[in-house]
Amino acid sequence: MTRAKFTVAGGGPVGSLLAILLARHGYSVGVYESRPDSRVTNIYQGKSIDIALSDRGWHSLAEIGISSEAKDKAIPMYHRAVHSIDGELTALPYGKEGDAIWSVSRGGINEQLLDIADTESNIEVHFEHHLVNVDFKTASTVFQRHRKSEITVEADYLFGADGAHSKVRRLAHNLPRFSYSQTYMPQSYIELNIPANADGSHKLERNALHIWPRKHFMLIALPNPDGTFTCTLFLDHSGDPSFESLQQHADVERFFNDNFGDAMEHLEDPIDTFMGRKPSPLFLVHVFPWSFNRKVGLIGDAAHAIVPFYGQGMNCGFEDCAELNRLIATHDHNWDEIFPAYENARKPNGDAIAELSKRNFIEMSDLSGDKMFQLRKMIEAKFSSRFPELWTPLYSMVTFSPEVPYAEALRVGDEQKAVMDKIMQLPDIEKNWDEQFVMDQLHELATETFGERR
Amino acid sequence: MTRAKFTVAGGGPVGSLLAILLARHGYSVGVYESRPDSRVTNIYQGKSIDIALSDRGWHSLAEIGISSEAKDKAIPMYHRAVHSIDGELTALPYGKEGDAIWSVSRGGINEQLLDIADTESNIEVHFEHHLVNVDFKTASTVFQRHRKSEITVEADYLFGADGAHSKVRRLAHNLPRFSYSQTYMPQSYIELNIPANADGSHKLERNALHIWPRKHFMLIALPNPDGTFTCTLFLDHSGDPSFESLQQHADVERFFNDNFGDAMEHLEDPIDTFMGRKPSPLFLVHVFPWSFNRKVGLIGDAAHAIVPFYGQGMNCGFEDCAELNRLIATHDHNWDEIFPAYENARKPNGDAIAELSKRNFIEMSDLSGDKMFQLRKMIEAKFSSRFPELWTPLYSMVTFSPEVPYAEALRVGDEQKAVMDKIMQLPDIEKNWDEQFVMDQLHELATETFGERR
Repeated sequence: MTRAKFTVAGGGPVGSLLAILLARHGYSVGVYESRPDSRVTNIYQGKSIDIALSDRGWHSLAEIGISSEAKDKAIPMYHRAVHSIDGELTALPYGKEGDAIWSVSRGGINEQLLDIADTESNIEVHFEHHLVNVDFKTASTVFQRHRKSEITVEADYLFGADGAHSKVRRLAHNLPRFSYSQTYMPQSYIELNIPANADGSHKLERNALHIWPRKHFMLIALPNPDGTFTCTLFLDHSGDPSFESLQQHADVERFFNDNFGDAMEHLEDPIDTFMGRKPSPLFLVHVFPWSFNRKVGLIGDAAHAIVPFYGQGMNCGFEDCAELNRLIATHDHNWDEIFPAYENARKPNGDAIAELSKRNFIEMSDLSGDKMFQLRKMIEAKFSSRFPELWTPLYSMVTFSPEVPYAEALRVGDEQKAVMDKIMQLPDIEKNWDEQFVMDQLHELATETFGERR
Repeated sequence: MTRAKFTVAGGGPVGSLLAILLARHGYSVGVYESRPDSRVTNIYQGKSIDIALSDRGWHSLAEIGISSEAKDKAIPMYHRAVHSIDGELTALPYGKEGDAIWSVSRGGINEQLLDIADTESNIEVHFEHHLVNVDFKTASTVFQRHRKSEITVEADYLFGADGAHSKVRRLAHNLPRFSYSQTYMPQSYIELNIPANADGSHKLERNALHIWPRKHFMLIALPNPDGTFTCTLFLDHSGDPSFESLQQHADVERFFNDNFGDAMEHLEDPIDTFMGRKPSPLFLVHVFPWSFNRKVGLIGDAAHAIVPFYGQGMNCGFEDCAELNRLIATHDHNWDEIFPAYENARKPNGDAIAELSKRNFIEMSDLSGDKMFQLRKMIEAKFSSRFPELWTPLYSMVTFSPEVPYAEALRVGDEQKAVMDKIMQLPDIEKNWDEQFVMDQLHELATETFGERR
């Protein structure tokens, strides 16, 4: 049986995964990626860009039938390693014993998915094809090949899986009743490197996400399998201190020594790297609808670019794919139904993870270094381990509970916050936090709030 | 003394007013408008588009030195005339005795401002010039003349006063760190007409804004000096009932008869007009910054397109002009200071009136026909007349209090709502509302909330 033909714009992790699931449902798929094939040209040039994958991502891959060989190369991070300004280290677990988020190489997982796509007979992948135009009525698409001639690709349907800067999405700005927003965060970022020890081991604790929280800015470090860490400095674009204000070598040096003293012995040329790199902006994209004329859809960052502070970007894109995978079956390949069902199911969750990611900058950069915040987390963790049916902490709902939609996690998290605000008002909570009456009080409030519902 | 040269893209009411104030500060100004000159070609073809002007608009015009001859032709509306579904009429005053919003012809006020611009020796106005491109570094602008040849206009500064669909703003989408959003409302609208009586008088009460509030949709009517009313039907784009669902003549007829029975004897061909016109969408635009490279600025709807439910769109644009007029003096023509001061002063107010306008759809279409809402308004009005220093109702702050910025009106309005929510919970408030203890209770709450601040 021959099914319809799809064009997928973008051969990143989400585009590749989408192509695989469509092919496995019997569709013929053409994937068009603007960059060269990294498996041939090594465009990453040894630069490792890490991303976080967590249970949602693994779960979605499994649902689509992708075995988790990627997980073998990933590094589990069981806690945040918080570096105080005078070098003191605190470990804040991400969840229960054994819960981890995983540092994976973006290039690595992309290449694995492209390798799988290559084994599917009804997928063709074309590199160095730059999307130029889309006919939103017919799903016919124009690409420029190798920066030279243009070709027009006909298909029954088109998906824009072309990332945060999606050209498909930007072309849709001109369609009637298409709502869109692109909002910049005050912060920008640059990447820095911590090299491996001579013996290939890590210079900092390997199974942790390191954070230097400094309130309005922060440095983080994620481990790579080769012993290095990829670090990211998030700092305001303008103001003081900022990428704009830190222009002189002496000022940058003082900024790093004052704030990241214990990292300075490990970082590779931080001052020169800081001064030589153009900071990248951070922005959020919200749009609706995610489909046009039942012919063209958006997926992944193209539909909902978010900020990286919850480590959920790729997880959310993979969840989009898993949802689509289910809907193709439920609606028996009827795309007049699948497109609206898909966007209505995923839009509230895309909005929720965008909101959660934005909020998490404060949690990472400010609160993770705050004693009262750490205490709050400890009380929550203790209560959750005793009454798991009443309470899963927000971070765990988002990260370790694929069965809880992001939108529900956001809503329940807000209710939990109201309860914990009351608990943190109990007299001398700093001293009494481990007393039975704190658990009793929390149990009463939690039962009141959540008891009847579950 | 020769000052710098400005290009103003757009010769609507805001663009014309901006040109006048710049010229009066000594600048040389070129205004480029894409449409033909309505004073010559009568592009409006007898169609009157009404807009509401209120104290902010008049106040801003006066500040810039424009005498209010426009007011002579405007029609004051002292209250909302609410038409219930069975034709019962209720008058809801807009403010205190004598407070009015004014129905003015958009074309009329535009032409008056263009006439004034023509008297200024350092303004040149060019019609049928369609903006094609902007160099945001140099403020040089390309226009297509009369749909034929292109010209490049050099200037020191450019203002985009080119309305809700601003081309200047859309070209800025590609600039770094420019945040933008365009969000569609569920409703669209079409305009209908109520003709004058044979003797030129109005078929409905003249000095009122008529509303047929039907919860999810509404009809409104604004009086024109020639005895006609311009009516606007706001209705969902899709769903039921909606512009999409109402396609058959019989269905449209039933919809009008069921909902606007008492208007049917006055409306001119409502069914055919409904079926023949393409509904216009309603959308909100939020962007930031409002200026680029201290060379190019946005003003009026180009910076903050809002929905018409508070009748504040043109008022807000005129206020932008008045603010700029003040800042040119304060900063002594230093545009490196004026641009940031302008956008920082106006952005919070643009955001606030956008939010207030959106909320006011519910107030107009749903609450204005609600007895408890009318009671709430009466209690507020009574209290405000007794304690004006403690309480100016939100509508009056927005409409009759140019000295209160929109952002403050929004904030105070939310606090007032919290107070009134408590008052409306008093036992048997429907019977007791005129009792002294209600005023006493409100005085206590209001003093608590606002007392120390004023």
